[in-house]
Amino acid sequence: MARNSIGKNLIVTSFGESHGPGIGAVLDGFPANFAIDADALVQEMNRRRPGQNPLTTPRNEADTIQFLSGIFQGKTLGSPIAVFIPNTDTKPEDYQPISDVYRPGHADLLYQIKYGHRDHRGGGRSSARITAGWVACGALAKQWLSQRNISIISWVQQIHTIETQLFSSSTNQLPTVADIESSWVRCPDPVASQAMINKIKEAQEQGDSLGGKIASAIVGLPAGVGEPVFGKLQSVLAQYLFSLNAVKSLGFGEGESAASLKGSEHNDAWLPNGKTATNHSGGMVGGISNGEIVHFTVSFKPTSSIQIPQQTINQQNESVEVSVTGRHDPCVLPRAVPIVESLTALAIMDLLLESPSQYPY
Amino acid sequence: MARNSIGKNLIVTSFGESHGPGIGAVLDGFPANFAIDADALVQEMNRRRPGQNPLTTPRNEADTIQFLSGIFQGKTLGSPIAVFIPNTDTKPEDYQPISDVYRPGHADLLYQIKYGHRDHRGGGRSSARITAGWVACGALAKQWLSQRNISIISWVQQIHTIETQLFSSSTNQLPTVADIESSWVRCPDPVASQAMINKIKEAQEQGDSLGGKIASAIVGLPAGVGEPVFGKLQSVLAQYLFSLNAVKSLGFGEGESAASLKGSEHNDAWLPNGKTATNHSGGMVGGISNGEIVHFTVSFKPTSSIQIPQQTINQQNESVEVSVTGRHDPCVLPRAVPIVESLTALAIMDLLLESPSQYPY
Amino acid sequence: MARNSIGKNLIVTSFGESHGPGIGAVLDGFPANFAIDADALVQEMNRRRPGQNPLTTPRNEADTIQFLSGIFQGKTLGSPIAVFIPNTDTKPEDYQPISDVYRPGHADLLYQIKYGHRDHRGGGRSSARITAGWVACGALAKQWLSQRNISIISWVQQIHTIETQLFSSSTNQLPTVADIESSWVRCPDPVASQAMINKIKEAQEQGDSLGGKIASAIVGLPAGVGEPVFGKLQSVLAQYLFSLNAVKSLGFGEGESAASLKGSEHNDAWLPNGKTATNHSGGMVGGISNGEIVHFTVSFKPTSSIQIPQQTINQQNESVEVSVTGRHDPCVLPRAVPIVESLTALAIMDLLLESPSQYPY
Amino acid sequence: MARNSIGKNLIVTSFGESHGPGIGAVLDGFPANFAIDADALVQEMNRRRPGQNPLTTPRNEADTIQFLSGIFQGKTLGSPIAVFIPNTDTKPEDYQPISDVYRPGHADLLYQIKYGHRDHRGGGRSSARITAGWVACGALAKQWLSQRNISIISWVQQIHTIETQLFSSSTNQLPTVADIESSWVRCPDPVASQAMINKIKEAQEQGDSLGGKIASAIVGLPAGVGEPVFGKLQSVLAQYLFSLNAVKSLGFGEGESAASLKGSEHNDAWLPNGKTATNHSGGMVGGISNGEIVHFTVSFKPTSSIQIPQQTINQQNESVEVSVTGRHDPCVLPRAVPIVESLTALAIMDLLLESPSQYPY
Repeated sequence: MARNSIGKNLIVTSFGESHGPGIGAVLDGFPANFAIDADALVQEMNRRRPGQNPLTTPRNEADTIQFLSGIFQGKTLGSPIAVFIPNTDTKPEDYQPISDVYRPGHADLLYQIKYGHRDHRGGGRSSARITAGWVACGALAKQWLSQRNISIISWVQQIHTIETQLFSSSTNQLPTVADIESSWVRCPDPVASQAMINKIKEAQEQGDSLGGKIASAIVGLPAGVGEPVFGKLQSVLAQYLFSLNAVKSLGFGEGESAASLKGSEHNDAWLPNGKTATNHSGGMVGGISNGEIVHFTVSFKPTSSIQIPQQTINQQNESVEVSVTGRHDPCVLPRAVPIVESLTALAIMDLLLESPSQYPY
Repeated sequence: MARNSIGKNLIVTSFGESHGPGIGAVLDGFPANFAIDADALVQEMNRRRPGQNPLTTPRNEADTIQFLSGIFQGKTLGSPIAVFIPNTDTKPEDYQPISDVYRPGHADLLYQIKYGHRDHRGGGRSSARITAGWVACGALAKQWLSQRNISIISWVQQIHTIETQLFSSSTNQLPTVADIESSWVRCPDPVASQAMINKIKEAQEQGDSLGGKIASAIVGLPAGVGEPVFGKLQSVLAQYLFSLNAVKSLGFGEGESAASLKGSEHNDAWLPNGKTATNHSGGMVGGISNGEIVHFTVSFKPTSSIQIPQQTINQQNESVEVSVTGRHDPCVLPRAVPIVESLTALAIMDLLLESPSQYPY
Repeated sequence: MARNSIGKNLIVTSFGESHGPGIGAVLDGFPANFAIDADALVQEMNRRRPGQNPLTTPRNEADTIQFLSGIFQGKTLGSPIAVFIPNTDTKPEDYQPISDVYRPGHADLLYQIKYGHRDHRGGGRSSARITAGWVACGALAKQWLSQRNISIISWVQQIHTIETQLFSSSTNQLPTVADIESSWVRCPDPVASQAMINKIKEAQEQGDSLGGKIASAIVGLPAGVGEPVFGKLQSVLAQYLFSLNAVKSLGFGEGESAASLKGSEHNDAWLPNGKTATNHSGGMVGGISNGEIVHFTVSFKPTSSIQIPQQTINQQNESVEVSVTGRHDPCVLPRAVPIVESLTALAIMDLLLESPSQYPY
Repeated sequence: MARNSIGKNLIVTSFGESHGPGIGAVLDGFPANFAIDADALVQEMNRRRPGQNPLTTPRNEADTIQFLSGIFQGKTLGSPIAVFIPNTDTKPEDYQPISDVYRPGHADLLYQIKYGHRDHRGGGRSSARITAGWVACGALAKQWLSQRNISIISWVQQIHTIETQLFSSSTNQLPTVADIESSWVRCPDPVASQAMINKIKEAQEQGDSLGGKIASAIVGLPAGVGEPVFGKLQSVLAQYLFSLNAVKSLGFGEGESAASLKGSEHNDAWLPNGKTATNHSGGMVGGISNGEIVHFTVSFKPTSSIQIPQQTINQQNESVEVSVTGRHDPCVLPRAVPIVESLTALAIMDLLLESPSQYPY
């Protein structure tokens, strides 16, 4: 209960159900006097919105953001910014057939157990639709970070078995945003991108779904960000990123591979210019950024809603078969890219606001 | 700043530096009237303490816990429980040679940048020694959970390239605590255990260090634990587990492997008894426990302190070579097992205390 | 920054400016499965709304509440309840004349200093209008408390020099809600009520304003509510009640009079039934409710907006004279009664939710 | 539960019982690199310590502070500062006679109800002794504020019926610290001071106790401090000050008297230099400091422990007579002065750390 807020200095309070009046968020702590770039905000929302291309859910909502407060004459007031996104293209009737069936991989049954009462329409509160509010807040955070020359770049590194590692701890070379955005699946490697598209189409035809992995890099973050011992950079990022239902793993720097390295291989030597010779650590030591590119990967499970019939139970506790028809992405990865960026931006801005003597605003 | 507390209902406030008067923690929110099992507490501390066997640091401290408050006549008062563990076997002179050298893989330089003033002796605040206070608090949480038939079992699954997967989502078979504890490296597979021991000895001789992976399982957790949308089970666990400096990745259920699965493979079917047919999810859906075993793995980077000479810089920003002699574990995994369990216990108890109408105490 | 939320278990996040799109609040932590009484909610809003009678501001807004989330089929979902109240009868042109003048007793100048950018229209964020959102949330809290036989009764005890003490620590006799609500000024003593009305009319004619005092009682609160040492009953209530701009003092039990009493006079003797013989303490000892009526008084300064010309400065830092015309209550006390009750209800419910083992829900 | 911490940017976590090993606090968020003035700290502790003069409890403890962490080479590290004050002069046998009697005005019975288990010796957790830890933390905050030319001056304005108003909203004249400290009762008016001393001696002889009022002023606070809408200056101060068990009322500026003023009398006119012509508001508008002296008064109930026999009940729920002998101050006001200052300093520093772009450190 009462855990729908995240952050200490920049607090996002999320609200809304997928088929209620709408979803939204209140962003508290955003500095005053900041001129909002409305176009950039719309563009960011469009990256997350459904219906971008044939690979995403046909739910077609413009995700028009209403600012209910906190902005006056195009600039932030320093008071809470409330954003609201009405649910316009809801089709609750789609969910009638499954109103008393608990879908596998979904939280339907658990919401019933936990709350004793649930909005069964399209996932209700557990729907990924609520991330639209997070992206709106994250887009503002990205604009603020951008003015401090901090940017967050994320892309699809893996879909199902197609993986392409584009960033290495040795070269620190990043793909371009243009290359990422030119791909339907937000994978900047054209060959892998095409293979991924084919994989998704195939799954779509089979009524199945796919998982994958997103890589993310924070560029321009100064050294010193992160708060020992319980607000460490990795710990704060983890709290935000694991808020995404589908995320099943998170690794910084070498991630899982660090387990099979030796200290002499993993340690990044300090150079006289305060940089490190390599970046195995993912840009952080002891929970504090070291001035290098912060990089991590996030693994997603495959979408739970599939058309292939599955065994499950209904409210009467009977064994039944279910085929989830609704409107769902066979693979959430491409649309999850801006969500990962948004959560990252919110986490980083929260930490930067904690050390304003070092990072004045 | 001001991020040395974790938890909402059961708050751990950590304090102390490795070579100051001592380290400790204040545990606030622990229910009143609970009889402490002092022996079990000592046993838990001994699992973490240095000097257990030839594979660990020779720093030899009994880690005797002093209760400064919160306990009267052997029972908790409902007031904060302050634990203090004096630093007795400190050898600050060991650190004199590196007082002005920034060790690779360590936060020395970053503390200097962030705070402008640091205790260079043995890592100071960033030392793993402070986890002794966490284990003391975690041991109390484990006792409380144990009364509710919830237990946490962790073991070493991998050291360097030696990996043995002992738990699978299909069988739900767990190793026994006796098998885990009978191994110097806390790996319950005797063959792998011996190979790991050999690997560590080899690294020790080379003055190098090794990383690895710990597997963890929460047994007996009822369905319904975890608080959408920002206090999800995985998100809360992640915040605690990434507080350990050496942790570089965390994966629930199938972890990274979920990325290459299809929905029809990953979804766990609901059975009429409210159980699931498989446990790919790691015992959680939508951020809420589903009543199955919660399982995850944590990857650790190799110990940063190695005797092999490395390039780095000193306070005068000159390039120097450093060989870290002090007293360090060549591989922290075996001693990290109780720490992972403690952090897990604290996270779980915090969440259970949030739903006392469901889980009365 | 980032201090627009209050509460730990039941969190109110407030947003909105008086002349923006609207004002609202997100109520997080409200238990699931609670059937909302919409009529009672409307009634509560009407107690606060302007235009009730000739003594209040002519701003005429129905304060229609929109539920944006958290309620499904008339019952709470356990997810955040977002309420929104559009600003419909805004007259920003009223404020044009004072757009560059800093009104005495108002926060205009201080918002300018603090945020560098402000919404000058009608107080913006510092307007009392934002309390409409608090009353909406408080009304839900009152319904929940009511089911546990806890009620909050407040009335006007003083306006300007007219004071009538209706509750004493010895008799524990409370006025009836009917008597309170039958008075335009919410003073249940008919003689005092009429004198207060006359005083207000007089001030209205003079273009001046009046302060006063509200008395409040919490009836039915069990013993044991309040959390030492920083969540004491009085401390939590104080944090909520001093959130009202006009509140200048708060006293529990004997309040200021306790200062001139002796211990032998002030101590409340315990009786064998667990009750106390008197109630000088205001129903709390050591920060914990003792099962008696909790009672306190809150003093309000006179409304800052007056038509009588006053000296002040403008944005050019010139001395100017200002007469605040807008639409303002000459005395806020009558409409503040439901606000005091709402803040009290939210504070009490937050504390009750903290001890669910004692007060199950 | 879990409410023993206060503050957002500078967090005090309090622990300890009056007759356990000791009491203490962890101060988290204190900026690094601050040189501690140990003498000033001792002096502050001495202002609170018992046994200062014949008017206070004969409990004679030097209240020697042990720093367990956070300070290295005389300077703060930026890590949590843990202070510990051992209980040395405990006489638990004094409390044996009342081990099963619930003292009137004390929380004995309520702790029993709330926690089911209590430390009956000298109030245990509810003892005023725990404020020694607050004063230690507050003393550090005062040193930090002092470097920013912010000081807090408090004195006794009233004991029982002897009252002397030394500060007025019109003159802004403050008493000197020397005059305050030269009085046994910390009342800078020599005539009133002597009358108060006589009153206290008289009460002492009668085995009775007295209440009173402390006045407090914050000097040098810049405009802009305080965080709408739930972190207002008055709201934050109230949360801290009502943490003192004996505090029964708090009033800012004109306090209760504001209730009988008109707007034309209470409003403080802005002057071209950004100052106000008068200071009826107590130095704050809309929850934000206005650059004037912040002033308030705090009323204390008389000490609950009196020797005069009182009616009460025991653990067997029988009516019994109790005379509290132990060692108690007949009037807590003189020793409460540094506590009020400490809580005020901690509140103010917490708020200043929230706006570091305005008040850099």
